[in-house]
Amino acid sequence: MAKVADMVKRVLVGRALRSAQAHEQLLPKRIALPVFASDALSSVAYAPQEILITLGVAGLAAYHFTPWIAAAVVVILLTVVASYRQNVRAYTSGGGDFEVATVNLGSNWGLTVASALMVDYVLTVAVSVSSGVENLAAALPFLADRKVAAALVLVALLTVVNLRGIRESGLAFAIPTYAFMISVFGLMLWGGLRLAAGTELRAPTAGYTVTGEGVGIEGFALIFLLLRAFSSGCAALTGVEAISNGVPAFRKPKGKNAANTLLALGMLAASMFAGITALAYVTGAKFADPSQGSVVLDESGRQVEHPAPVIAQVAQTVFSNFTPAFYVITAMTALILVLAANTAFNGFPVLGSVLAQNRYLPRQLHTRGDRLAFSNGIVILATMAGLLIYAFQAETTRLVQLYIVGVFVSFTVSQTGMVRHWNRLLRTTTDPRARGRMVRARVINAFGGLITGLVLVVVLITKFTHGAWIACAAMVVLFVMMRGIRRHYDNVATELVVPEDTEVDESMLPARNHAIVLLSKIHKPTLRALSYARATRPSTLEAITVSVDAEEAAQLQRQWEERGIPVPLKILDSPYREITRPVLEYVKHLRRRSPRDVVTVFIPEYVVGHWWEHLLHNQSALRLKGRLLFQPGVMVTSVPWQLHSSDRLKGRPESFAPGMVRRPYAEAGKDDQVKM
Amino acid sequence: MAKVADMVKRVLVGRALRSAQAHEQLLPKRIALPVFASDALSSVAYAPQEILITLGVAGLAAYHFTPWIAAAVVVILLTVVASYRQNVRAYTSGGGDFEVATVNLGSNWGLTVASALMVDYVLTVAVSVSSGVENLAAALPFLADRKVAAALVLVALLTVVNLRGIRESGLAFAIPTYAFMISVFGLMLWGGLRLAAGTELRAPTAGYTVTGEGVGIEGFALIFLLLRAFSSGCAALTGVEAISNGVPAFRKPKGKNAANTLLALGMLAASMFAGITALAYVTGAKFADPSQGSVVLDESGRQVEHPAPVIAQVAQTVFSNFTPAFYVITAMTALILVLAANTAFNGFPVLGSVLAQNRYLPRQLHTRGDRLAFSNGIVILATMAGLLIYAFQAETTRLVQLYIVGVFVSFTVSQTGMVRHWNRLLRTTTDPRARGRMVRARVINAFGGLITGLVLVVVLITKFTHGAWIACAAMVVLFVMMRGIRRHYDNVATELVVPEDTEVDESMLPARNHAIVLLSKIHKPTLRALSYARATRPSTLEAITVSVDAEEAAQLQRQWEERGIPVPLKILDSPYREITRPVLEYVKHLRRRSPRDVVTVFIPEYVVGHWWEHLLHNQSALRLKGRLLFQPGVMVTSVPWQLHSSDRLKGRPESFAPGMVRRPYAEAGKDDQVKM
Repeated sequence: MAKVADMVKRVLVGRALRSAQAHEQLLPKRIALPVFASDALSSVAYAPQEILITLGVAGLAAYHFTPWIAAAVVVILLTVVASYRQNVRAYTSGGGDFEVATVNLGSNWGLTVASALMVDYVLTVAVSVSSGVENLAAALPFLADRKVAAALVLVALLTVVNLRGIRESGLAFAIPTYAFMISVFGLMLWGGLRLAAGTELRAPTAGYTVTGEGVGIEGFALIFLLLRAFSSGCAALTGVEAISNGVPAFRKPKGKNAANTLLALGMLAASMFAGITALAYVTGAKFADPSQGSVVLDESGRQVEHPAPVIAQVAQTVFSNFTPAFYVITAMTALILVLAANTAFNGFPVLGSVLAQNRYLPRQLHTRGDRLAFSNGIVILATMAGLLIYAFQAETTRLVQLYIVGVFVSFTVSQTGMVRHWNRLLRTTTDPRARGRMVRARVINAFGGLITGLVLVVVLITKFTHGAWIACAAMVVLFVMMRGIRRHYDNVATELVVPEDTEVDESMLPARNHAIVLLSKIHKPTLRALSYARATRPSTLEAITVSVDAEEAAQLQRQWEERGIPVPLKILDSPYREITRPVLEYVKHLRRRSPRDVVTVFIPEYVVGHWWEHLLHNQSALRLKGRLLFQPGVMVTSVPWQLHSSDRLKGRPESFAPGMVRRPYAEAGKDDQVKM
Repeated sequence: MAKVADMVKRVLVGRALRSAQAHEQLLPKRIALPVFASDALSSVAYAPQEILITLGVAGLAAYHFTPWIAAAVVVILLTVVASYRQNVRAYTSGGGDFEVATVNLGSNWGLTVASALMVDYVLTVAVSVSSGVENLAAALPFLADRKVAAALVLVALLTVVNLRGIRESGLAFAIPTYAFMISVFGLMLWGGLRLAAGTELRAPTAGYTVTGEGVGIEGFALIFLLLRAFSSGCAALTGVEAISNGVPAFRKPKGKNAANTLLALGMLAASMFAGITALAYVTGAKFADPSQGSVVLDESGRQVEHPAPVIAQVAQTVFSNFTPAFYVITAMTALILVLAANTAFNGFPVLGSVLAQNRYLPRQLHTRGDRLAFSNGIVILATMAGLLIYAFQAETTRLVQLYIVGVFVSFTVSQTGMVRHWNRLLRTTTDPRARGRMVRARVINAFGGLITGLVLVVVLITKFTHGAWIACAAMVVLFVMMRGIRRHYDNVATELVVPEDTEVDESMLPARNHAIVLLSKIHKPTLRALSYARATRPSTLEAITVSVDAEEAAQLQRQWEERGIPVPLKILDSPYREITRPVLEYVKHLRRRSPRDVVTVFIPEYVVGHWWEHLLHNQSALRLKGRLLFQPGVMVTSVPWQLHSSDRLKGRPESFAPGMVRRPYAEAGKDDQVKM
């Protein structure tokens, strides 16, 4: 049984990866682009339809605002790209927004960005997977009623794959990403050609109408609604910042290559977003969501429960004369969305490791090579995303309401930090050409910061009650928790600091070492403990047993004498049949008699091979140990006895680390600790 | 916050009890009776109506079998009492059926009885609490729709009270038990008087009719049904054996006093059961349960959903001219049922402790004085009972189907064991008077074993498909688990035994002791670890650090030299940024170089005061320790550093023990281990 379980685990979780292989593998731009693009590009699968949903609240008439909203989103997208081109040139270490904010604005802003990013990673998984399932359901109708289950299964699959530590390769990212790009551009091209040829392209929902709770609004209310539609469309911007965490993965000159890749990514994302939105507009595709206050009605005025996703409608329309292409588009869309979710599985544990290195999270998350650090991160991410998917019934639209707050918080904070960065550099730079470049960069960052700040305000105002408050609350909780952890570590560090002038010499040494060996009967583990204890040549050595049964104690005494064990045996009475208290009392008594000495308590301990054996052994020993550690001047020594069953656990492997392509090992190692 | 939680816990769980107080307090018979009676007497609250339910399956006509069934139950009850009078005289140690079976029939039969008793304790809680709520609902109608919740709340209350370690006193048992007896006998007397005076007593359901799925059956099917009704009525016998576990609590002569108390208990239980059944019969009370195939119909032929419990109907009828008495009876019934459930809360952990002493359960359950041992038992019992209550929706009738299997298994096995006991004694006894007594006792036990065995077969045949299979399955699982645990402990003991001729002398001593101190930076805990390690005067001493960051390691090296620490520092490279593996490799290397030596690894360990601090500290150290223990020839020494926060946990009390009245401390201690 256990062997089978072991094999299953080995297959699912896999062997350690040699990190050395990853070191040399820096990415050429043509591979770097797809590695960092999936998150940003995948949002064309849901951003256009979010605009339609929100406009639909004011009824079909509001649909004619679509091009304007889309144009505004594209402007913001290009602004952010321009801004981040400055970031990646200035900060090539891969610390990303967290580093920019911490260095330029201080640790609290760094922590704000970190909280936002963590929330964001969770939402990336939830939104991408939900949208992926939604798109799959357009091709595979039986999924429509099983969206939550399908999404949870996908998250579980991603978890297993990432716990297993997939050997990421640039190719694994490149093929589906380029395939998705080709599909979407093919769609846009074919659609454009058919339109140019004069074909009338009518979406399946072209004849439908849309109505909502805000039909007939005007003035301020209409402007508010348009702003909300714009906020929703800004979902297209998520993932643009990913490259700033991955600069170390680029070939040299890293900064320039990263900036150029980012530009290419921005152009691609912008044109795909614009193209899909335009095709949806031209073909008259309708999309709405009752949870946001809009409804699609068919020709006879009945509500359409599950309209197909906009990208699927567009594909169906454009390829009405060639159905297989529709299935290709749908499959590619689902694939890129899953890939986007997977990037969060890489990014979240790395961020956790950086934060742990800076003591904002438990130390144990730091050591990169350690399986546990990453598994913890992966499992936490999957659990949170799974809960969100379940709570929001895998409905992309409702999840998107929570999404963009975090993104724009880090955009704004990071751009503000960059302005500070240039200010500082300008104070010390005299070379006029360098100054000119810096001033130009500062203008771009300042503009980016201003615009993204404005968008953040708009997003907060228009979406707060629609769910954004949940993301805000989560950020606050994370922020407070991480501050608390850091404060705790700082307090402990202060408590433990050794004054500079402390001499480490003989005067610090305890005078003598009193050893006691705890035992309840004479068997191999206790004899081993006795002889090990004797090997440490303590000043005094006693064997201690707690008498819970007078007869047993007497028997032990007899055996002790018969065997002639050359260590005195002391029997502690325990009228209450406790183990812990008499031992504690005795140790305290030893300490009181000679406070400058140290007491070493030897405890024989069983080493077992099955989890359930822990329930059967060592429990009293562990409890006793836990209590003894509270006594100052006491050391507790475990003398292990390996039971036969423990053999099976001996040679277990212990390490691997995902996320190596995006953030190579050696490089990340050096720069994890942000200097403050 | 933590302080408040602590206070709440202190209030709910309470302080340790001094066991010494309990020692002297042996029970006079008038107090012993109520202490052991609640379980047996409380079954009159449900046993009579179980007979009616089953008879009702054959329709109202079958009700005239009631007196015959009741008479059969009374005969069995008195037979069992007569048999157990022999048990308590012969076995005064309080080991009960487990001891009788183990000593006379071997450990497998002892374990069978133990499994049966454990299942029984769980069912005692589930049945008694459910029936208690049912009776309360007769007086407080708003409970009728909230039975499950009310029952679970009662179980939770009992759990808290028992975790708190109620200071049991004979009086606490005596008052409600005597009050219940007085109420029931008052009821019987008053009913008898009114009937004698010619008053016609008609139960509220007297005009109703009963029908069932088996109306019109005859021949073998009818006999089967009557046997099933009889099986159900045998629920009246549960708890009769309780005294056999409590003999040590009696004054001397313990055996005789216990036997006489048992006789009194048997007479009381028999007359109360007979009296209530008779009154129900005479007043024409109807009761049925659709889950068992019978239904009560009112005058207009509509099904009555929740007929009042039989004892409540009887009380209502008899006291129709004096309503307060009805409420008293109902309250007393509920109270005695809760008291009966409480006895299981005392008995279960004690049984667990006895089984642990005999190595059928984890050792940790053994030490009586330890809070954890008893809390574990109490929580397990409450959880199992709660699950049963939830699964069976607190319906007494459905739970009773599972109940009596366990009781009759232990009756039968125990009586068979007693026959063996007498056979053995007769083989060595020559005194004719003593032999006469023994032969008489053997006849009684043989008859008891035969009868209870027959009843067991009847119960199994008639109830197996009605739920008894669940109890059987649970017993088998427990049996197999306990055998497995015992086998494990036996194997380990064999593995560890020291051959008789092993000399404990210098030749067993390791040649030298290599000490290494693990550290990552220089602070107080590591300096303490260093000086303690030096105090043990090892043959060699090195400080070891794992370099996950070359810069940090270099800095540590510099500080080390600056401070002039008189211990060599060795830096282990870790290209994978792991901690565990390099240390393990190094220790293995030391061992390989000198296999006859022992390696002591000193690990500085933080002692913290809050549970969440464990997440922030020591995780790497603990993991490392866990791995080191698998290496032979290695000791791991924790050098604790008490953080300020640990102060709050220093003086926590740790012990108490419930169940002391039924099974006094000093006595039980001596006899827990059944000699085999």
